Amino acid sequence: MQTITHLGELRQALRVLSRPIGLVPTMGYLHEGHLSLVRAGRQECASLVVSIFVNSTQFGPTEDFSDYPLDLKRDQSILEKEGVEVIWAPTRELMYPPGYQTWVNVQEVSQPQEGRFRPGHFRGVATIVCKLLNAVQPHKAYFGEKDIQQAMVIRRMTRDLNYPVDIVICPTVRAPDGLAASSRNKHLKPEERQAARVLHRALSRAGQAFDEGERDADGLREIVIQSVRQESLARLQYVSCSDPATLNELEGRVKSQAVLSLAVYIGTTRLIDNQILG
Amino acid sequence: MQTITHLGELRQALRVLSRPIGLVPTMGYLHEGHLSLVRAGRQECASLVVSIFVNSTQFGPTEDFSDYPLDLKRDQSILEKEGVEVIWAPTRELMYPPGYQTWVNVQEVSQPQEGRFRPGHFRGVATIVCKLLNAVQPHKAYFGEKDIQQAMVIRRMTRDLNYPVDIVICPTVRAPDGLAASSRNKHLKPEERQAARVLHRALSRAGQAFDEGERDADGLREIVIQSVRQESLARLQYVSCSDPATLNELEGRVKSQAVLSLAVYIGTTRLIDNQILG
Repeated sequence: MQTITHLGELRQALRVLSRPIGLVPTMGYLHEGHLSLVRAGRQECASLVVSIFVNSTQFGPTEDFSDYPLDLKRDQSILEKEGVEVIWAPTRELMYPPGYQTWVNVQEVSQPQEGRFRPGHFRGVATIVCKLLNAVQPHKAYFGEKDIQQAMVIRRMTRDLNYPVDIVICPTVRAPDGLAASSRNKHLKPEERQAARVLHRALSRAGQAFDEGERDADGLREIVIQSVRQESLARLQYVSCSDPATLNELEGRVKSQAVLSLAVYIGTTRLIDNQILG
Repeated sequence: MQTITHLGELRQALRVLSRPIGLVPTMGYLHEGHLSLVRAGRQECASLVVSIFVNSTQFGPTEDFSDYPLDLKRDQSILEKEGVEVIWAPTRELMYPPGYQTWVNVQEVSQPQEGRFRPGHFRGVATIVCKLLNAVQPHKAYFGEKDIQQAMVIRRMTRDLNYPVDIVICPTVRAPDGLAASSRNKHLKPEERQAARVLHRALSRAGQAFDEGERDADGLREIVIQSVRQESLARLQYVSCSDPATLNELEGRVKSQAVLSLAVYIGTTRLIDNQILG
């Protein structure tokens, strides 16, 4: 396994890799969610590149960029065991040198949910993913369903921009108590870790109601609101019940499928999760 | 030579082409300027793809998209003789299907000169060039110096977004009387064609003054203004004397190099040209 910083070295390394090449883009501090992407890629591709880059441009000015956990040594040792061929870990200066001025915007699907509370976030995501796809030119790239809007923004972008890449979306990996794997879980104090179970619990309750026949979008959102309210350490930022094709908020009756998603603050840590209904 | 409309067919055709692959992006109605790009590509690359697509998204609402000249049969016959391997001529519906929503913005360098008078133009250019680069994955791509700001926007974009492509900028091709080759020259009536010589004449006069020691940016611009004023069929839209690295307008003394550029209406036909000083 090679760990590469510079783009020129990456291009040289790519030349000799067997095809198809898979790419798993990460911000490091790897957890079981990332590993599920790596393992899916390992199954489907002859070579695997994992990028590790904490992308400053997808963080808002008041967000946790400077606090974002990082441990390259630990990540290297994990990825070595998974049989990854290349780690690409560029510096911020290499990715955004002085004079940098190009941005990729995916319009409609970036607007609701996360886009409403994190303006500029998906512009940063779309831009860095373009850069990673251009640098690695992978045949497949792997993303987690936990960040469902991100996955949809990227899929829309790659289709719109004619990238010859297959975007593979892998199921959310959860702790036995339901908490979705996330690098930000590291910030949770023990009692907050307990409280964080409320995200999956709230979604599950609404999912159960859906299975039992509840089809009113407001009714489903209300179940989530009430469930989160029962947890005193949790503060709901938003709950959304949206169209899986567009992520537009649904009003009235859910006809077939819906995406139920939410963002919750547990103390100062912001967590997101989602569940597909139907 | 194959003429291809669909992306799937293009990908199949690309698989068997010898490397390196060159791309010449055009809007068709080929002239000597395009042919100089094709011939440069022919020299440097093992295979050559020429795209022909009149890109609606780089035209403003009051611009000449619907009038833009098109003659695929003629273009095919020209490119066949040049030994081009593939013409890619997608439809507007294939490039911008319903729900299309992704745009590439190159910020600072898109703002002055053409960007000021054609808002959205370079967003359309950057986006379509991204799409063409992703679809063809060429090793080199060829652009003309006549559209110098376009070439700089594209070079900036490919560097910022880590495209593994070499952007080659070829010298402007001119008629014996100095008029730069352009598809829009077709619209000129005989007396307008005569009048159109004023663009190159005005730039040449300023260039001569520069060679004789004139270094004041205002002085150089004034020479262009006065030269264009002498042609009654011409209306100057702008003249710019800018920094070649940033295209920012120069004030005071030109220290080393400058780009002198202008846009002129001859009747209803808008023409641009430029000259590098120093």
